[in-house]
Amino acid sequence: MLNRIRIVLCTTTHPGNIGAAARAIKTMGLSRLVLVTPRLFPDHQATAMASGADDVLASAVVCASLAEALEGTVLAVGVTARRRDLSHRMVSVRDMALEAVHELSQGDVALVFGTEMAGLSNAELDACQLLANIPAEPDFSSLNLAASVQVVAYELRQAFLQDKGEVAREFPPATHEELEHFYQHLERVLRVIKYLDPENPRRLMIRLRRLFSRSRLERDEVSILRGILKALHPADEGSSRPL
Amino acid sequence: MLNRIRIVLCTTTHPGNIGAAARAIKTMGLSRLVLVTPRLFPDHQATAMASGADDVLASAVVCASLAEALEGTVLAVGVTARRRDLSHRMVSVRDMALEAVHELSQGDVALVFGTEMAGLSNAELDACQLLANIPAEPDFSSLNLAASVQVVAYELRQAFLQDKGEVAREFPPATHEELEHFYQHLERVLRVIKYLDPENPRRLMIRLRRLFSRSRLERDEVSILRGILKALHPADEGSSRPL
Repeated sequence: MLNRIRIVLCTTTHPGNIGAAARAIKTMGLSRLVLVTPRLFPDHQATAMASGADDVLASAVVCASLAEALEGTVLAVGVTARRRDLSHRMVSVRDMALEAVHELSQGDVALVFGTEMAGLSNAELDACQLLANIPAEPDFSSLNLAASVQVVAYELRQAFLQDKGEVAREFPPATHEELEHFYQHLERVLRVIKYLDPENPRRLMIRLRRLFSRSRLERDEVSILRGILKALHPADEGSSRPL
Repeated sequence: MLNRIRIVLCTTTHPGNIGAAARAIKTMGLSRLVLVTPRLFPDHQATAMASGADDVLASAVVCASLAEALEGTVLAVGVTARRRDLSHRMVSVRDMALEAVHELSQGDVALVFGTEMAGLSNAELDACQLLANIPAEPDFSSLNLAASVQVVAYELRQAFLQDKGEVAREFPPATHEELEHFYQHLERVLRVIKYLDPENPRRLMIRLRRLFSRSRLERDEVSILRGILKALHPADEGSSRPL
């Protein structure tokens, strides 16, 4: 089941950190590393720091975008050191791990890490349904990237070992693509009805995304919402694409 | 209270790991790094990897022996990835953290880490009263040194934050020096009474140390034991040193 967890590293600067992350996840029984536009990979520094986790590096998937990295996931969690001025739901990595492991019965779960210097961008955060925080010293809260990956992988393993196999969610959650198609559909309709002004969008779509993210939409709920959108604007050509 | 925790690194090979460990502990609000015979320190790689935790490096204490590093501690915990063929008590780092934080009201607590390649030696383990294990994948259980320090410091911080201030131990535990004086006294007496053959000591003292380590001796109990030893062999000149 731990093989359903993707560790997604966004735009990593130092290849040594990729190798150290590979080692970190392998010690905890995870194996899937996904690299979004890494600056340098493969690289000998990555191999040196992997220190035996060569198999994880060899099977790492390089993606051109975070959206590609998240394809098919049922939960994407952004890992962040800072409190964010957001309406995203934010939990500790310990609580996140329990939730994430529980979700594995439904499909793949992604843990998303930002760059070494700046963490996750707001656009990257918006692709996540949940934020997880490593409780740290407020004045010095920035863990090394591989150290963050180690703590998160550690918590996932501990949660997995203690998971009592509670009853799985009754209804399947929407996948990343289903959610994205919904947001695109929603935005088109909002433009058509002139609620969203393309010249002055403000933060409308971002706020709507966050609102829906917190609710962890189920697949059937997305169908219902898209049904409503279609009813609002039946001529929308994009709404005919499959759900 | 977290300032009472010493992170003790034994014979570290790579100075970069010392710097990364300094950063790791600072993110969790710890500050005391103790280095037992590091191969290279100070060093620019340590400073580079500390990444802002220069104060922790600057105040790091370098010791010539583990015994010196443990002076004045009331609990020394050996961190080990492997199961050991020992009669030491071994717990998970999560359970250890709860115990260790609880002990801080009594005095300093040390977390002892071995070398990058081989971990803690048996002699180093014998100086500890408790072993703590990071639950990892059995086939690939060796975390990077700084990653281990990060997980341990993380668990200590979480335990500290959730510590409900239970009633402190009623009686003060013995310090490292009190225990060592007791073991020396015991060994002298065992030789005198010819229970211990210096030509063929087998593992007698090691087994006795482990036995007493598990019981977490209190100061008064050590006084009682030394009183017994003195009564057994009143002429022992070493027994007159202060407890």
